[in-house]
Amino acid sequence: MRLSEVAGKVGLTFSGHDIDVGGVNTLAKAGAGDIAPLLHRKYLPQLAETQAGAVLCEEKFAPEGKSCLIAKNPKLDWARVVALFAKPQGCLTGVSPQAYVHPEAAVGEGVTLYPFVFIGARARVGAGSVLFPGVYVGEDCEVGANATLYPNVVLMAGTQLGENAIVHAGAVLGSDGYGYAQGPQGHVKVPQVGNVVIGRDVEIGANAAIDRAALESTKVGDGTKIDNLVQIAHNVETGRHCLIISQVGIAGSTKLGNGVVLAGQAGLRDNITLGDGVQVAAQSGIGQDIPAGTIVGGSPSMDAGTYLKVSLSLPKLPELMRRVRRLEKALEGPDKETGHE
Amino acid sequence: MRLSEVAGKVGLTFSGHDIDVGGVNTLAKAGAGDIAPLLHRKYLPQLAETQAGAVLCEEKFAPEGKSCLIAKNPKLDWARVVALFAKPQGCLTGVSPQAYVHPEAAVGEGVTLYPFVFIGARARVGAGSVLFPGVYVGEDCEVGANATLYPNVVLMAGTQLGENAIVHAGAVLGSDGYGYAQGPQGHVKVPQVGNVVIGRDVEIGANAAIDRAALESTKVGDGTKIDNLVQIAHNVETGRHCLIISQVGIAGSTKLGNGVVLAGQAGLRDNITLGDGVQVAAQSGIGQDIPAGTIVGGSPSMDAGTYLKVSLSLPKLPELMRRVRRLEKALEGPDKETGHE
Amino acid sequence: MRLSEVAGKVGLTFSGHDIDVGGVNTLAKAGAGDIAPLLHRKYLPQLAETQAGAVLCEEKFAPEGKSCLIAKNPKLDWARVVALFAKPQGCLTGVSPQAYVHPEAAVGEGVTLYPFVFIGARARVGAGSVLFPGVYVGEDCEVGANATLYPNVVLMAGTQLGENAIVHAGAVLGSDGYGYAQGPQGHVKVPQVGNVVIGRDVEIGANAAIDRAALESTKVGDGTKIDNLVQIAHNVETGRHCLIISQVGIAGSTKLGNGVVLAGQAGLRDNITLGDGVQVAAQSGIGQDIPAGTIVGGSPSMDAGTYLKVSLSLPKLPELMRRVRRLEKALEGPDKETGHE
Repeated sequence: MRLSEVAGKVGLTFSGHDIDVGGVNTLAKAGAGDIAPLLHRKYLPQLAETQAGAVLCEEKFAPEGKSCLIAKNPKLDWARVVALFAKPQGCLTGVSPQAYVHPEAAVGEGVTLYPFVFIGARARVGAGSVLFPGVYVGEDCEVGANATLYPNVVLMAGTQLGENAIVHAGAVLGSDGYGYAQGPQGHVKVPQVGNVVIGRDVEIGANAAIDRAALESTKVGDGTKIDNLVQIAHNVETGRHCLIISQVGIAGSTKLGNGVVLAGQAGLRDNITLGDGVQVAAQSGIGQDIPAGTIVGGSPSMDAGTYLKVSLSLPKLPELMRRVRRLEKALEGPDKETGHE
Repeated sequence: MRLSEVAGKVGLTFSGHDIDVGGVNTLAKAGAGDIAPLLHRKYLPQLAETQAGAVLCEEKFAPEGKSCLIAKNPKLDWARVVALFAKPQGCLTGVSPQAYVHPEAAVGEGVTLYPFVFIGARARVGAGSVLFPGVYVGEDCEVGANATLYPNVVLMAGTQLGENAIVHAGAVLGSDGYGYAQGPQGHVKVPQVGNVVIGRDVEIGANAAIDRAALESTKVGDGTKIDNLVQIAHNVETGRHCLIISQVGIAGSTKLGNGVVLAGQAGLRDNITLGDGVQVAAQSGIGQDIPAGTIVGGSPSMDAGTYLKVSLSLPKLPELMRRVRRLEKALEGPDKETGHE
Repeated sequence: MRLSEVAGKVGLTFSGHDIDVGGVNTLAKAGAGDIAPLLHRKYLPQLAETQAGAVLCEEKFAPEGKSCLIAKNPKLDWARVVALFAKPQGCLTGVSPQAYVHPEAAVGEGVTLYPFVFIGARARVGAGSVLFPGVYVGEDCEVGANATLYPNVVLMAGTQLGENAIVHAGAVLGSDGYGYAQGPQGHVKVPQVGNVVIGRDVEIGANAAIDRAALESTKVGDGTKIDNLVQIAHNVETGRHCLIISQVGIAGSTKLGNGVVLAGQAGLRDNITLGDGVQVAAQSGIGQDIPAGTIVGGSPSMDAGTYLKVSLSLPKLPELMRRVRRLEKALEGPDKETGHE
């Protein structure tokens, strides 16, 4: 592709020679046929030395005499450039004779079903979707158009997955929620008869788990991105455009507003609500409702400013204890008026 | 089904008209053909407005003129009502010709093997069990009667799974324990030659992992319920009727008594013992034996009462440091007799 | 096998009678045909009472009149003894006609492909490797010789896996990294066009996830051992011989030196570096570079000595607050000169 063509497709201008480009790489590794991005000032030294045929950067950083895509929003512009060169994974198309498709299932136009895919009764797979080997789509599921289900993804019965979904290998949607009633002979399972409903443009990471609702639906809003190994319990509802990062756990019936960000390994208790735009630091433990727009950290969580100060104070706690002991001794004096312990 | 029939099957009385009911739902979403439960006082306003044909609640809450199942133990009674309406997942029965069954395997009566199931040599699958697509049962495994193995569940060689087990999609039982000896050229694997033994009435969550023992067996007691993404290391033993909630990790050779509850993301070190009825708060880190009946929280853990107080004190730590500094200054006075730093 | 033969194969001497041995077990469970090890002094009472035909222990502990393999390094010597008796899992050999092998794939000599294995275009599987049911090897992958891929392991396109790799069931290598740019209509996916490169002698646990790089490669060094349910994000690089224990999460572009040990549930932020030999305690949260040889704990982390003291002090924090209040009151006196709040 000519650099001018790249520029045209992503709506950027370019400076320098109009060269042939065939791929993308980092400033450090790119060669004469590659475009490389400047995404952070710390890479400026690499920009000066790169062998890349062309670079993408803000105008103020554009190197003399180098072909350059002029970015306004480098991260976003770069995402679009990469998309031009990324080719989708996979090496087959069409419906494999080694897939199992239930006679009552409906498979849309242009769908690819790899060998060892299973499509259950009354399930519908939207046009253009690609289901890799080992994918299970249970009865009464609905998979939207242009979805990508990587190997061994499991959609239990009745799961609804929106358009353009990307579900990474091993993720499980619609497993039973963890619900038991205490009986005289142990825990009695509460059958989980709800389902999972995923909006459009959602991405779900490898080996993540999203449980079906006890009743009604567990819901993930449009555009929400869920990372690997995340746990979403029954009846959770997330808003739109949330970011839920690896190994986060969200307990039953908790609700997230729009644009919520949960950093890695954070845990949210059941039956709470996080307002729009809440941001939760990594490894935090959230035990109560969090108002919209708040940033919190710690386990149990506190507001981010307090958490930062507590984190800085904590290593000094042993010394603080010694200081208080010294104060007590000083105050006790010879007559121990205020002594204790 | 008539409401009178429902009442008879679960051993409850009912009040009001004997109507036809066809399903279950929440008070908010139920329609004229549904039964809906009152499981918490906070839903009393919904009880007043529900469109449900019938409700399940304690006698004191029974609404005038509404068909009502009178519950003594609403959660338990509700579990039984839901079970009447829940239908098992799946759309096939019998042994699929697209399953692989080793000639030396023994498959019991009424077993369902979906396409792409693999049953290894000398494995035995008990009567009435259902194995969904992609399930792997290694050689010498024993699956008890009426077990349900959802898609892509893996039982490595020699795993024993008790009657009525429910194993959710992607769970792995019998993977090698994490055992290495330090050698001159790096870590040398200690082959893991034990197995996994799971009692009866056990449920295991999606993408959970239970390692085989180094020697002897990793054991899960009868009636224990394990949530999604839990890690159980080699030679762990759990008692009966434990609740092990999502993303908990239990390190090697640790033992749990009966009725232990581990809340989400808690971590237990290796080679410790938790007595009967121990309860561990979410995200706790347990580094030592915990006596029976104790409730603990925190990382490292402390008794629950202390943990609660510490959690309340912690946000005040930065202010406490300032107060101590003020005290020191006050005591130092102009002559700095007790000064330090 | 004769005990003398065992001793010869692992390079140990033995004392006592040269008996027939057929297996290995613990001191408590071993019988007359078994060898059992003494791996910790706490088992000395079991050594005295064991029914094992032979024991492995240091010379000073060798029981009178019992056949004994004299160990110099008991754990390492035991690993080698167990390896003599451990038989590899599995019950088939050769390439199953129920596997799918792309015509452009290259499968080496002596490879075993179980039913329901998928090998994509241009993928190469090294000689002697064993791929269990449900394994997916995407296009352009390279699997080294003598690798073992347990059921439902997924290698996405372009993954390189070194010789002697052991990948446990359900692990996913090469899933997309979690990368988005903020756009006007929500998060825009940055296509992940790098890959995963795993060194030789690496073991990866059940349901672990290792993401492909955005550009270039996510790398795991030779001899590194990764436990179950670990998350390794895009562009992470680990050194050689690291130990990464269950449920650890490592965020994007973070680098580990050689011999790093990360205990269970630890979390590492993105774009930091841990030097050679760093050890991280369980559940720690690492937010910054850690110099080589350091031991750290806590979330946020501090050096291990401080962390230990803080952990001991923390339960006393509520009492400390009361003590400071008492000091303030004592100092305030009747005239409140230094009072506050």
